Amino acid sequence: MIVVPGPSSTKLGGKVAEILGVRKVDVEYKNFPDGESYLRLSEAVSGEEVALIHTTYPHPDKRILELLLLINTLKDLGARHITAVVPYMAYARQDSRFREGEAISINTIFRLIEGAGADEFITVDVHKEFSLKVFGIEAKNIRAAEAIAEYLRGMDLVRPYILSPDRGALKIAQSIGERLGAEYGNFEKTRDRISGAITVKGERVEARGRDVVIADDLISTGGTIASASKIVKGEGARRVIAVCTHPLLVGDALPKMRGAGVDEVIGTDTIESEVSRISVAQLIAKELSKS
Amino acid sequence: MIVVPGPSSTKLGGKVAEILGVRKVDVEYKNFPDGESYLRLSEAVSGEEVALIHTTYPHPDKRILELLLLINTLKDLGARHITAVVPYMAYARQDSRFREGEAISINTIFRLIEGAGADEFITVDVHKEFSLKVFGIEAKNIRAAEAIAEYLRGMDLVRPYILSPDRGALKIAQSIGERLGAEYGNFEKTRDRISGAITVKGERVEARGRDVVIADDLISTGGTIASASKIVKGEGARRVIAVCTHPLLVGDALPKMRGAGVDEVIGTDTIESEVSRISVAQLIAKELSKS
Repeated sequence: MIVVPGPSSTKLGGKVAEILGVRKVDVEYKNFPDGESYLRLSEAVSGEEVALIHTTYPHPDKRILELLLLINTLKDLGARHITAVVPYMAYARQDSRFREGEAISINTIFRLIEGAGADEFITVDVHKEFSLKVFGIEAKNIRAAEAIAEYLRGMDLVRPYILSPDRGALKIAQSIGERLGAEYGNFEKTRDRISGAITVKGERVEARGRDVVIADDLISTGGTIASASKIVKGEGARRVIAVCTHPLLVGDALPKMRGAGVDEVIGTDTIESEVSRISVAQLIAKELSKS
Repeated sequence: MIVVPGPSSTKLGGKVAEILGVRKVDVEYKNFPDGESYLRLSEAVSGEEVALIHTTYPHPDKRILELLLLINTLKDLGARHITAVVPYMAYARQDSRFREGEAISINTIFRLIEGAGADEFITVDVHKEFSLKVFGIEAKNIRAAEAIAEYLRGMDLVRPYILSPDRGALKIAQSIGERLGAEYGNFEKTRDRISGAITVKGERVEARGRDVVIADDLISTGGTIASASKIVKGEGARRVIAVCTHPLLVGDALPKMRGAGVDEVIGTDTIESEVSRISVAQLIAKELSKS
């Protein structure tokens, strides 16, 4: 096996290659003045089993097109087996038709990945696992909870409570909570389908004097985390720690969360960001060595 | 037939629908804060023969992904026949492998368009027609020379000379020249494969006192046109008019060309720009009514 780190995952891809002890083939990359990407495999890949590691954030559309170009180029250059490893899969929240006529974008993108020539697909904490069913090839979802729990164990949390800001992420809170032997639960989030406005409310959390870990699959604008943080800080939480797999951190997400009482924001390196203190490299390497 | 103007070709798409006298179905479009596109067909398309008109500039990667999402959504919603009309096809210059390992990006993109569900493909002045051969579906290239020549005829040019700045665009200069009954010819352009630096030189053009029309398929940074303009102005041209099908006009292209003596820049509406004074709507409508 060889590892090809795409231009959006050079660090993470390098780590995975190192853990697996396999050859790394870099991608030469540049952007033309008109916005087109230039991509070139720096070494021969003919006959190789290739793990291409390329995340799709920031600039999801550009990153997705690069992913498709790289898969198809690897195929064209004679790679024997291509595993597309997409640590953060953009568009995964567009997984259903809420209004007549809407694009179910993640279905199209998965079809395109397969059509471009991927033989296998691996992602991390995809928004909803059912969306992977559109694939005809083998498609796996790695859960980052293990790596996140391990990191939190090193933090000396005081009577931690793991809180999911909505029902959808309860599985994440639960799987972190069980690993830490901590209580867990969830708020309820409602999103206005037209305006996009978010409301968070829920059962009272006995937060007084405790460290509350708000866990979600991703942090985008930080609005959901900020709302949940205000509630638990209002109930007397000692510290609020926001933890996620995918730190998108759009615009002023960090100051917004801090302003709402969040003491610390922690993410993984599925997206390279200033809060990426947890690496999913081991988990990806483990999955790849199973294949 | 119905016409669906994609978000990047609302004006041109509207014109085509009007000329054909057919129903126009709009696309509801927005951009999420994290950069993802939201797309929704505003009316039912089931059982319809659809002409989707969506250009791929500016922001080629975003526009290409939208194109693929729209094609696949139309298919998913039950459209009977989908013609993808892409007035400007980005990435068409990446049509060969100049160095080992390079992506031949246009091949991948054409495969993706077909794979997404297009039954037919129409573009305008694609960089090289041979690149269309990768399609398994019917693929047509419309030449804009007719519309461009008609516009130039209305300009009262003085002893016009139609000049292509390189060999590749000679066909364009020739086809405009023949329509106008004007002399035509070409310079030679060399591009350093590594640095990208461009050199233009060529046969002496008897330019003194004449209007020189520099014609190319596209104007990107304007560097090629500027070099050619300096030469013919140096030889005493009366006016220099730069004309192209696709006005990309990256960054300071317009002031750069004007500074090199270009008196006027004219493009078509394959890309909506401030110089789009010629419409290809009639040519597209004509081609669609043949299908």
